[in-house]
Amino acid sequence: MISKTEILQVSEQISPFIHNCPLLESQYFNDLLEAQVFFKAENFQKTGSFKARGAINSILNLGKAEYSKGVATHSSGNHGQALAWAAKQKGISSWVIMPSNAPEIKKRAVKAYGAIVIECEPSLAAREEGLKKIQEETGATFIPPFNYHHTIAGQATAAMEIIREVPNLDFIITPVGGGGLLSGSSLAAKYLSPNTQVFGAEPENANDAWQSFNAQKLIPVKNPNTLADGLKTSLGDLTFHYIMEGVSHIFTCTESEIIAAMKMVWERMKIIIEPSSAVALACAIKHKSIFKGKKLALILSGGNVDLEKFFEKLKA
Amino acid sequence: MISKTEILQVSEQISPFIHNCPLLESQYFNDLLEAQVFFKAENFQKTGSFKARGAINSILNLGKAEYSKGVATHSSGNHGQALAWAAKQKGISSWVIMPSNAPEIKKRAVKAYGAIVIECEPSLAAREEGLKKIQEETGATFIPPFNYHHTIAGQATAAMEIIREVPNLDFIITPVGGGGLLSGSSLAAKYLSPNTQVFGAEPENANDAWQSFNAQKLIPVKNPNTLADGLKTSLGDLTFHYIMEGVSHIFTCTESEIIAAMKMVWERMKIIIEPSSAVALACAIKHKSIFKGKKLALILSGGNVDLEKFFEKLKA
Repeated sequence: MISKTEILQVSEQISPFIHNCPLLESQYFNDLLEAQVFFKAENFQKTGSFKARGAINSILNLGKAEYSKGVATHSSGNHGQALAWAAKQKGISSWVIMPSNAPEIKKRAVKAYGAIVIECEPSLAAREEGLKKIQEETGATFIPPFNYHHTIAGQATAAMEIIREVPNLDFIITPVGGGGLLSGSSLAAKYLSPNTQVFGAEPENANDAWQSFNAQKLIPVKNPNTLADGLKTSLGDLTFHYIMEGVSHIFTCTESEIIAAMKMVWERMKIIIEPSSAVALACAIKHKSIFKGKKLALILSGGNVDLEKFFEKLKA
Repeated sequence: MISKTEILQVSEQISPFIHNCPLLESQYFNDLLEAQVFFKAENFQKTGSFKARGAINSILNLGKAEYSKGVATHSSGNHGQALAWAAKQKGISSWVIMPSNAPEIKKRAVKAYGAIVIECEPSLAAREEGLKKIQEETGATFIPPFNYHHTIAGQATAAMEIIREVPNLDFIITPVGGGGLLSGSSLAAKYLSPNTQVFGAEPENANDAWQSFNAQKLIPVKNPNTLADGLKTSLGDLTFHYIMEGVSHIFTCTESEIIAAMKMVWERMKIIIEPSSAVALACAIKHKSIFKGKKLALILSGGNVDLEKFFEKLKA
């Protein structure tokens, strides 16, 4: 169990490495939701997502022997970038197994942070096999993307920063994929602002957390199809445990609700958020009656969008 | 001539209405330019561009008789939105003549701020005729987009805010279309930080300011073709005067340099800027040797991009 003392220490330890990202407000969304809405802009975080928090915390908790051998993970997205970046901060080696169909921009980004990228077939089995092989060859420590003590403790710090800045916060909504951010947020609220309710927000098309929460047992989804590529993964046993213990409810929303929410943020707030981030807002809009007259914080989890197609259009 | 006293007063008077937009920094761009680079994020300004500054200042300077009859302008872009918004702040009527081919999103935005939109053929003659007709019918005061004393004095406040925040600033670069922002910025530097050099940045495809500056006489361009839709207009006599007096140089850049700079900002800073804003950065990158080791501020003039096409792609 992650303790209050631990998350306070983690917040101290990772603070020299990460941004305390701004809490943005927008009259447009306050009016729309008839609430006071705070957007924690983790799209401005190092590597473009909150994942930097858990990755650097995991690296800082490696033992001496582990340090020298480096770290490895498999990822098609933000965790790979975050781990590569975190390893670089401490000058250690990193390997990231990526599916061959991952966007070029993500592969380039991981390489740019100094990781060695190993491509594999786009299946979980191939990714796990690739990881196992690299660990055997190098002795690198596997840093899991969400179902891992130090990852969850790191992700808790985003909600901690919100709670420190907003007294008497009524609600926090975070997107939920593997559940690291949601688990961490529920721990931060429990220890630092027990009257703040924590909700998860999930695409209908990848609703394993919603199913698992309601059935009170882990129900993974297979090959879900959603634009919110960061939320395709299913909960793990650890994150399921924390979510059952500390989360009030899981909301879901459709793909068109995700797109509409994302477009509103781009247009109205002039910031780039990825579809996964928009899921929290889409759910808040869908259930606005709950939030009327209240103080609500949404975690905008990241801003890593493949912009190639849009800019190709401009060049034409 | 706009005096130091006037721009200080304008800054006071408009401050309850506008945002003092943040000065953003990015390690990526500091490294790229080998300089300390500050981005004045006017894309976060009311109505999504710096134009709100000049528009509200123009409204605040109307006489009593003018107030009651409202204001009018012709605009395909940000000035129309800004004037509609500014009029609403003071509860007065506004009319905006817009070319029929202006993006739907811009027409909707102008209407949403409460202006009456009158469509006309997409030519300057039709726009001016439409404006004249409305003025005759309503007695509304014409508020020009740039070649106007109160507009220029309002635009000066963006550079004033930068100068107050950054001591010993070496350079300011602003995009130049009609020249209101560039004129105002040169006045702010002259009065408040005389060692700060002010540069204009312009698309090669709409290089009237560059031509005029070098020839020392007004040389307008006709129907220029550039993605930087805010910079298609040519200088006016007033802005030409201020620019000749206070600006050190005009840089130009190509369309592909504009796209590349815009994409870098979206990707790296996770903020939406319009092509006109990217022109200042594109010119800074092109002439980076000038800025090495210096403190440089770029004004990101706005963030109003028609996102329809990009999001249609997502929905498909």
